[in-house]
Amino acid sequence: MSDKLWGGRFTGEAAEWVDEFGASIGFDYQMAAEDLEGSLAHVKMLGQEGIIPPADAQAIAAGLQELQEELAAGQLTFTVKNEDIHLNMEALLTEKIGPVAGKLHTARSRNDQVATDFHLWVKHRLPAVMSELTTLQSTLVKLAKDNAAVIMPGYTHMQHAQPISYGHYLLAYFEMFQRDYERFEFNQKHTDMLPLGAAALAGTTFPINRQVVAHELGFDAIYHNSLDAVSDRDFALEFLSNASILIMHLSRMAEELILWSSYEFNYVELDDTFSTGSSIMPQKKNADFAELIRGKSGMVYGNLMGLLTVMKGLPLAYNKDMQEDKAGTFAVMDTILAALKVFNGMLATLKIHPEKMAASLENDFSNATELADYLANKGIPFRQAHAIVGALVLKGLQEKRSLTAMSLTELQEHSDKIEADVYQVLDPKVAVDRRTSLGGTAVANVIKESQRDQAILDQRTKG
Amino acid sequence: MSDKLWGGRFTGEAAEWVDEFGASIGFDYQMAAEDLEGSLAHVKMLGQEGIIPPADAQAIAAGLQELQEELAAGQLTFTVKNEDIHLNMEALLTEKIGPVAGKLHTARSRNDQVATDFHLWVKHRLPAVMSELTTLQSTLVKLAKDNAAVIMPGYTHMQHAQPISYGHYLLAYFEMFQRDYERFEFNQKHTDMLPLGAAALAGTTFPINRQVVAHELGFDAIYHNSLDAVSDRDFALEFLSNASILIMHLSRMAEELILWSSYEFNYVELDDTFSTGSSIMPQKKNADFAELIRGKSGMVYGNLMGLLTVMKGLPLAYNKDMQEDKAGTFAVMDTILAALKVFNGMLATLKIHPEKMAASLENDFSNATELADYLANKGIPFRQAHAIVGALVLKGLQEKRSLTAMSLTELQEHSDKIEADVYQVLDPKVAVDRRTSLGGTAVANVIKESQRDQAILDQRTKG
Amino acid sequence: MSDKLWGGRFTGEAAEWVDEFGASIGFDYQMAAEDLEGSLAHVKMLGQEGIIPPADAQAIAAGLQELQEELAAGQLTFTVKNEDIHLNMEALLTEKIGPVAGKLHTARSRNDQVATDFHLWVKHRLPAVMSELTTLQSTLVKLAKDNAAVIMPGYTHMQHAQPISYGHYLLAYFEMFQRDYERFEFNQKHTDMLPLGAAALAGTTFPINRQVVAHELGFDAIYHNSLDAVSDRDFALEFLSNASILIMHLSRMAEELILWSSYEFNYVELDDTFSTGSSIMPQKKNADFAELIRGKSGMVYGNLMGLLTVMKGLPLAYNKDMQEDKAGTFAVMDTILAALKVFNGMLATLKIHPEKMAASLENDFSNATELADYLANKGIPFRQAHAIVGALVLKGLQEKRSLTAMSLTELQEHSDKIEADVYQVLDPKVAVDRRTSLGGTAVANVIKESQRDQAILDQRTKG
Amino acid sequence: MSDKLWGGRFTGEAAEWVDEFGASIGFDYQMAAEDLEGSLAHVKMLGQEGIIPPADAQAIAAGLQELQEELAAGQLTFTVKNEDIHLNMEALLTEKIGPVAGKLHTARSRNDQVATDFHLWVKHRLPAVMSELTTLQSTLVKLAKDNAAVIMPGYTHMQHAQPISYGHYLLAYFEMFQRDYERFEFNQKHTDMLPLGAAALAGTTFPINRQVVAHELGFDAIYHNSLDAVSDRDFALEFLSNASILIMHLSRMAEELILWSSYEFNYVELDDTFSTGSSIMPQKKNADFAELIRGKSGMVYGNLMGLLTVMKGLPLAYNKDMQEDKAGTFAVMDTILAALKVFNGMLATLKIHPEKMAASLENDFSNATELADYLANKGIPFRQAHAIVGALVLKGLQEKRSLTAMSLTELQEHSDKIEADVYQVLDPKVAVDRRTSLGGTAVANVIKESQRDQAILDQRTKG
Repeated sequence: MSDKLWGGRFTGEAAEWVDEFGASIGFDYQMAAEDLEGSLAHVKMLGQEGIIPPADAQAIAAGLQELQEELAAGQLTFTVKNEDIHLNMEALLTEKIGPVAGKLHTARSRNDQVATDFHLWVKHRLPAVMSELTTLQSTLVKLAKDNAAVIMPGYTHMQHAQPISYGHYLLAYFEMFQRDYERFEFNQKHTDMLPLGAAALAGTTFPINRQVVAHELGFDAIYHNSLDAVSDRDFALEFLSNASILIMHLSRMAEELILWSSYEFNYVELDDTFSTGSSIMPQKKNADFAELIRGKSGMVYGNLMGLLTVMKGLPLAYNKDMQEDKAGTFAVMDTILAALKVFNGMLATLKIHPEKMAASLENDFSNATELADYLANKGIPFRQAHAIVGALVLKGLQEKRSLTAMSLTELQEHSDKIEADVYQVLDPKVAVDRRTSLGGTAVANVIKESQRDQAILDQRTKG
Repeated sequence: MSDKLWGGRFTGEAAEWVDEFGASIGFDYQMAAEDLEGSLAHVKMLGQEGIIPPADAQAIAAGLQELQEELAAGQLTFTVKNEDIHLNMEALLTEKIGPVAGKLHTARSRNDQVATDFHLWVKHRLPAVMSELTTLQSTLVKLAKDNAAVIMPGYTHMQHAQPISYGHYLLAYFEMFQRDYERFEFNQKHTDMLPLGAAALAGTTFPINRQVVAHELGFDAIYHNSLDAVSDRDFALEFLSNASILIMHLSRMAEELILWSSYEFNYVELDDTFSTGSSIMPQKKNADFAELIRGKSGMVYGNLMGLLTVMKGLPLAYNKDMQEDKAGTFAVMDTILAALKVFNGMLATLKIHPEKMAASLENDFSNATELADYLANKGIPFRQAHAIVGALVLKGLQEKRSLTAMSLTELQEHSDKIEADVYQVLDPKVAVDRRTSLGGTAVANVIKESQRDQAILDQRTKG
Repeated sequence: MSDKLWGGRFTGEAAEWVDEFGASIGFDYQMAAEDLEGSLAHVKMLGQEGIIPPADAQAIAAGLQELQEELAAGQLTFTVKNEDIHLNMEALLTEKIGPVAGKLHTARSRNDQVATDFHLWVKHRLPAVMSELTTLQSTLVKLAKDNAAVIMPGYTHMQHAQPISYGHYLLAYFEMFQRDYERFEFNQKHTDMLPLGAAALAGTTFPINRQVVAHELGFDAIYHNSLDAVSDRDFALEFLSNASILIMHLSRMAEELILWSSYEFNYVELDDTFSTGSSIMPQKKNADFAELIRGKSGMVYGNLMGLLTVMKGLPLAYNKDMQEDKAGTFAVMDTILAALKVFNGMLATLKIHPEKMAASLENDFSNATELADYLANKGIPFRQAHAIVGALVLKGLQEKRSLTAMSLTELQEHSDKIEADVYQVLDPKVAVDRRTSLGGTAVANVIKESQRDQAILDQRTKG
Repeated sequence: MSDKLWGGRFTGEAAEWVDEFGASIGFDYQMAAEDLEGSLAHVKMLGQEGIIPPADAQAIAAGLQELQEELAAGQLTFTVKNEDIHLNMEALLTEKIGPVAGKLHTARSRNDQVATDFHLWVKHRLPAVMSELTTLQSTLVKLAKDNAAVIMPGYTHMQHAQPISYGHYLLAYFEMFQRDYERFEFNQKHTDMLPLGAAALAGTTFPINRQVVAHELGFDAIYHNSLDAVSDRDFALEFLSNASILIMHLSRMAEELILWSSYEFNYVELDDTFSTGSSIMPQKKNADFAELIRGKSGMVYGNLMGLLTVMKGLPLAYNKDMQEDKAGTFAVMDTILAALKVFNGMLATLKIHPEKMAASLENDFSNATELADYLANKGIPFRQAHAIVGALVLKGLQEKRSLTAMSLTELQEHSDKIEADVYQVLDPKVAVDRRTSLGGTAVANVIKESQRDQAILDQRTKG
């Protein structure tokens, strides 16, 4: 874009504006380290394979290493004039070592270069996501074990359903994050592929050695089709899909923390670090961070939809539309890393109110299933048992009395199968402890599961 | 958040990280001018209504005006410690005028304050969107008039369908942008509403005068329900919906410019300002800006989806999730303003190749409908006429001959209704000119429509 | 597709499967009435303008009217073989009146025909959406007026913020639905446009009269560009955007109804018609319909995103991708019409528990702002007043005592500006009644606003 | 919902309408087979473990088997009155075997039942998706091998970039579908988990044996947390994410088939089975199926976004919102299965025009990189080589001459490194063949890769 043909008709500012619209340096500067890393591996290979003279390769490598140091020290500045991180780096290198810098671009193109940088950027950060997930899972397991015997109402449709262990509740999220972990682990497979060497789209006539570059950069696999290498963004879409499911999980727990912090529930109290006050109402203590994480689902989902839209209907190979792949991916990565960290801190410092949870179970009829099961165990078809208990619940609601407050005679009026042992069955703690089926909420189960889960984490850390 | 209770267990950096996660100053600084504008109107009213002493009001107003000047001069700096633009501004004001600054927050809350700032921000920019649309429409009208007689293939399913006027093509986009214009105009209605005075959520006990504030800020209407005032983001969702439809329109024309710039079509040539080269392939001239605008549909759609997701299922009134409303809206506004400007420049400097368009019509059978209509006009039911022409097209394809290359005898073999006057009908220029039905592509129509469209724009500028 | 060239290699079933994939009759049969309506108007015009012989026009019109009757009687059947509703109807007409049916398609194409049908379909249903909104708004106004004096906690961040009138709460939704109404009203403008006459893409050589057709079909306006006429789906996108914002509003109120129906809140009780039980837990009464409506936000948002995706980057004019415009739009229309009806029934039969709402306010410190405003009124800068009250709230939380439970001496220890009149200010009812600022929650305001809102509805019904 | 309390105020039709809004039988009937399958496994276990008398279990099993036969024979009818597939089946069973049917629901709930059915439904169909992918990949490999030596322009930014092998192009899609395959394979892991036994949310007090049920139903794993079991929809979200990436890939190739079928490109000709004509333009042959598949990206993306929206912020465990999980998943499954089948047919019958592809390379300067590489090989830094060739291309464009049309002297005016051997390098076929780097487009590479890919498929079929 050396000469702006429309310069006469438009102002100079307009032309600058155009440049800025097209430039990606405003966000791809975040791949500066990856760009240098990729170039270094490339030039080593060029020298090693004799594609450029070894001395030139050494000079270029030395220059790149200086740039790495300057980058780490925060001394590099980039300009919109040089469009993107690649041309910025080449300009800085040329400034440093002169025209020999021009040999660095032998046997590569910006198309495979940007793909390589982007792969490296995600590849470097997936382990951090997995590590934050592990931390959060560890917190959950520890809390679950410690709180296995805390009984609270279990909800379906936001209605009290059956009593459960708070530890059991926590382990439900352990399972979700376990699947998230497995998804990000799988995500590595399609991230851990080297595009460099695809050149513009068709491979190159130079006798490059892609295995050497892959090894140098720590890539497990190499793209076997050059067109695919430069036009594939599956790894980013997988990441955004996985991030969407993860933030959905976080949004669910966030919702519960918000509700449970309310005056009406009052089951938990967030640490002051994770709450904020009001500029007008002095009494407020808001679950701001939980709300924010719940709200972040919007930006994560939106960026997934955004990249899917970008890629829809794009002919092969590289098109400039694909420049729109990075800003959203970067933002989502930052968001979920921070959200996981904050969430972990929020949970680790959360104060629970077991007495409120228990109190909430006293008159709520969440033991109705116990009675139905009790009757079914005595041979009454479950559907009929269900109907009998329904009538008793109705009576209780009308008279504002719980099932345990009813006399045996009263109960027997509805079914002669009911005997004195029924009262024990109706106790929430007993109800929980009797659910020993695999995956059930019995306290003993929760302890056993927390051990199994801890073993998974231990194995992971070792592996 | 004065004391971090979990400070002992976590490092100080972690706590800072938490603050940063919660802070919005990283993006809401963009509303700095609006925040000052709103505060100024508020404090004037407070003084005028005697809610705070007039002298205090004057002191505060003077402080705010100084801040306005410093902002304009780029002298203000904000900190994450003060969370958001509102608390940052209050801190700066307090620094300047001392504790009397504390009276500014009388009878308002951050909830109505942020809503007011956000309304103002969008309200200030919708006219710019409309103005860019007007510019683009003007360019289209001018080009349409100038190129009314340029004939090109009209496409359906990317197949040559019937010849059309290139000016007619351009005016199709005029119509789309006209609807876009009307949507942004309508968008003003729900943007142009004052939330200030709703306070936290319920109104205030102070005898405020919202009409005065509305007038001062140039708002046409006032929210009549305080809960709604602080929890409504419809105006932003309308904006994002409108922006999505707009960028979709741009993506369609961008697609055409990209295709038409290809070697195979070669109908148009983009100005060098709106093209870029390749780092590896010296011959390339890429329609980068058109591609980028097509790709921008992703971020615009994504941000619409994002805010819809944020708002789903939120109970009244303000929730922190809603802090996620601004970054996306700001980004979309910047994007469409820039995209419209770039698109206008791209069109205004576009070179067309009428001779290629004409050549493309020579052997393409896009005059087949003419023959079918010709036969229908002679009383053959259209379905039969269609079948007759289908047979002739097949013959043409097999023999690689156009319809005009066939002799009258040959033609008459398929229908004796065909006479010597048929050849004139088959000329693309004649085909275009005979489509004089309202909205049809006849050159005369295009000129008439361009005059009508120009009148719409003239009226708008006057209005 | 009369002869399948690949028939030898694949089975007949495969070919049928291909037909089915391409056919739209599976959903566009829903436009059967509109298709006949459009054809009738078209053929009347053809006859009237002498484009086909009047007798032919009459024969066709008679045939179409018979088909209308048979459609109404549920006697028409369509086949995948005939692809879409248009070819199905033409086949049925031909069966009925013979080859003269072929003249109906003179001067039109399926491209403008399908656009016309789709416009008519939406045009016919927007008034129903607006009417359901009016019904729902009427219910809200009535309930608001009747319950203006019911006091409940107002929430921000799901925390008790300040007491509000339940009627005020209801009117917040009136405002949202008012904006929804205005959006659907605006939506009519771009729906109420006639595409017919655009033919395939370029207009027609026949001397058609589009004004006559527009008048016959009740269209206010006519597309002035034939390319735009056949490729524009803005009206559907506007509809889907509006439906998305509407369902978002419904999802918010649904969320509140679900929460308020919970054991912990117990503010409301849904009528049995709008609740369901559990197959296992006899005590359950679930807010199923509210949950379902909240969940329907997914399908509505998804269909908006779907059509935006379809249209992205499509070159002019008609492309088969656009066949994907209808199924989603139809489903969303059905969904919001049903959701509005259900929601209205749910609200109209909702039982509220004012005593629970009142009890919830007793010890919740939601009167803290009252005290801060009280102090600010006595000249203390609001920020200081806020701090004083914060200390008192902290004391109350620690001692489990409300502000009204503290003695005057205790209060005065924190500020000597506090006097005996403070206790009246702290009463929730008084707090509500003192918020008389425009849009504030004072009971008198709510009554006044409900009258203003009723007037809007009355005006609408008259207009 | 036995008695409708609001019946007096509303019409019976209204109440029916409400039922219909809540019912899911309209789409969950598609899981009828899975529902019976799950019930059969459940009742066998109940009998085997002595939870219900073996005779009762046998009676129920016999009844269920009869229902299976009737379902297969198309003899079952379902009603909205019975809400969903589960209650419909229970009603049919009760009709058949009397009240003992009520024992089937022992130790389960609709919450774990629907989760089980849904898991089974997806589990049964993922192999079909994988099988269709394998078929499509086989077609690609075969075509790639057969067409390895067909040379065509490779595109970036829709501009001719460098010549490539058409086989190489096809194998790029092989790679994409390979990743798709791996994603659906991974998808099985989280699908292949048994929820049954979680009961309503907390497990059950009955001594069930979930291993037996898992084995009976062919599930590899069992949910270890009952809350998670009933509230997890990750497997469906994974499926929708994978389907979105898959349809994106298809949309890209569809775009190319559409473009290449155009008059301007004319590289390929679709079989008549996969093309359609026009109702008005006799010459049209539209790539309807490719367009439709491209457009289907909208519904697939939309349904992903829909389910993500549904799940956002839902508290544990089951909520009615989740009923919205199935319709979209079912529709997407049907769509991608059909789209894959159609796509395979389309490719397998596609006619290509190698002579047009070759002609397109003659004067397009896509050999410019060859010259740059040639110069770089002679020691000129690539950036300089790039500049030299840029000047030659400009000259060529101005003089309308290709590089090969320039004399050696002319070429040498720009660089004395150019020698007579340059002309060979400029031949497109040579250019392709020299790209032997791993993943490069050389014909030999393509053949080697197609063998490697075939081996992957062979391995898969064996595995």
